[in-house]
Amino acid sequence: MAKGLNRVYLVGTLTQDPEMRYTPGGLAVLELNLGGNDLITDESGSTRELAWYHRVKLLGKSAEFWGDSLKAGTALMVEGKLEYRSWEQDGQKKSSLEIRADRLEVVSLEGKRGDLTVTDARGQSRLREGLNHVLLAGNLTRDPELRYTPQGTAVTRFSLAVNERFTSKGTEQEKTHYVDAQAWRDLAEWAAELKKGDGAFLIGRLVNDSWTAQDGTRRYTTRVEVSRLERLARGAGSGGAGSQ
Amino acid sequence: MAKGLNRVYLVGTLTQDPEMRYTPGGLAVLELNLGGNDLITDESGSTRELAWYHRVKLLGKSAEFWGDSLKAGTALMVEGKLEYRSWEQDGQKKSSLEIRADRLEVVSLEGKRGDLTVTDARGQSRLREGLNHVLLAGNLTRDPELRYTPQGTAVTRFSLAVNERFTSKGTEQEKTHYVDAQAWRDLAEWAAELKKGDGAFLIGRLVNDSWTAQDGTRRYTTRVEVSRLERLARGAGSGGAGSQ
Repeated sequence: MAKGLNRVYLVGTLTQDPEMRYTPGGLAVLELNLGGNDLITDESGSTRELAWYHRVKLLGKSAEFWGDSLKAGTALMVEGKLEYRSWEQDGQKKSSLEIRADRLEVVSLEGKRGDLTVTDARGQSRLREGLNHVLLAGNLTRDPELRYTPQGTAVTRFSLAVNERFTSKGTEQEKTHYVDAQAWRDLAEWAAELKKGDGAFLIGRLVNDSWTAQDGTRRYTTRVEVSRLERLARGAGSGGAGSQ
Repeated sequence: MAKGLNRVYLVGTLTQDPEMRYTPGGLAVLELNLGGNDLITDESGSTRELAWYHRVKLLGKSAEFWGDSLKAGTALMVEGKLEYRSWEQDGQKKSSLEIRADRLEVVSLEGKRGDLTVTDARGQSRLREGLNHVLLAGNLTRDPELRYTPQGTAVTRFSLAVNERFTSKGTEQEKTHYVDAQAWRDLAEWAAELKKGDGAFLIGRLVNDSWTAQDGTRRYTTRVEVSRLERLARGAGSGGAGSQ
């Protein structure tokens, strides 16, 4: 497997006061709800603003450090990674993809001009010029699926396995994060050239999606909309020896 | 000081065969020359291609691993950081800003359409759709300088001190990297609001610049052209406790 790259950068405003909780083991967990707009320029040159809302987790000492000082409306910069978790519930396999922060900074909007935030239907304020930036490297878990919308627009979905190596209790361990990605138009057609197992490097933005499952429940997912995609050559780099 | 963030991502082609050398201490150093184009869209919506050439250093085992397998024309993805060095020579203070790679991957262009590379006047080939992406966080070393071109375009220059903490021989050490940055138009006017000492987070691209000094010698510098800039609030995050 290609050595995983898993970096998320967000700038947005807190849509709610953060909630602090503790795990049964005593670990502090601070949950942040960040909102922002992405400014998207389509091929015709017209731009539109797309809203995003992401939940970010902060753990341990840094959760306790930040816990009391953050309020709804505060602008934050987050550096972190996507964290995949899976579990069984009532005999069904469930999974989630969350953002885990490594670093948090309060962003000062002082001196900026114009309407900096928009208020949504729930009265929450989100940052107009948000930053929503994901960089990933991993391997395709299956061949990509290319399809066309009724309007004839190409769209390709694929899934990336991004591995993480870490040392826990003195032994080296490995964890895999599974991330769904989607590309449009020319990039969709290029993405469809990739094959299961290929290494890929991509840049994109993180979007929320929801749908109603067959059992009537509402399902939520987080996905990457790809703006840049490169195929990594097999061989040389895949052993990890290419990196220090 | 704000905890430093120092990440560089490049995708380009090798303009020459890499050169391997060894330091007197026996450390392998592989020097890569990468070239690519940035596609810039200005405010009028028109796009133009700007060439960049960057020198990237790879050290140690990974230099030896890659040494023989890389040839001019190969497309590479680099993840690394900016490394500032300063020294005295003939009584004068000299400095350089280089790119040090943490990770290298060969990028496969197979299946991509169109003219993927351009050949320059020296016969070197560079990637048309290059990636040239820098993320930094640090503190301003002085108040920014706002000026206007004869055409009335605002441009602001500033310099960022980006700190790095690392452990060497069991003791924690700190190093500071000094990076010059430049912003244009609206962003220049916003950048001019910042003050010496302020924390800043920025995204940009790395450009080469050269000029003739008063002593007639040719001087080269590397600078970041800023596309996104945020001021980080003082206080909470600056002690580093905000990060794990």
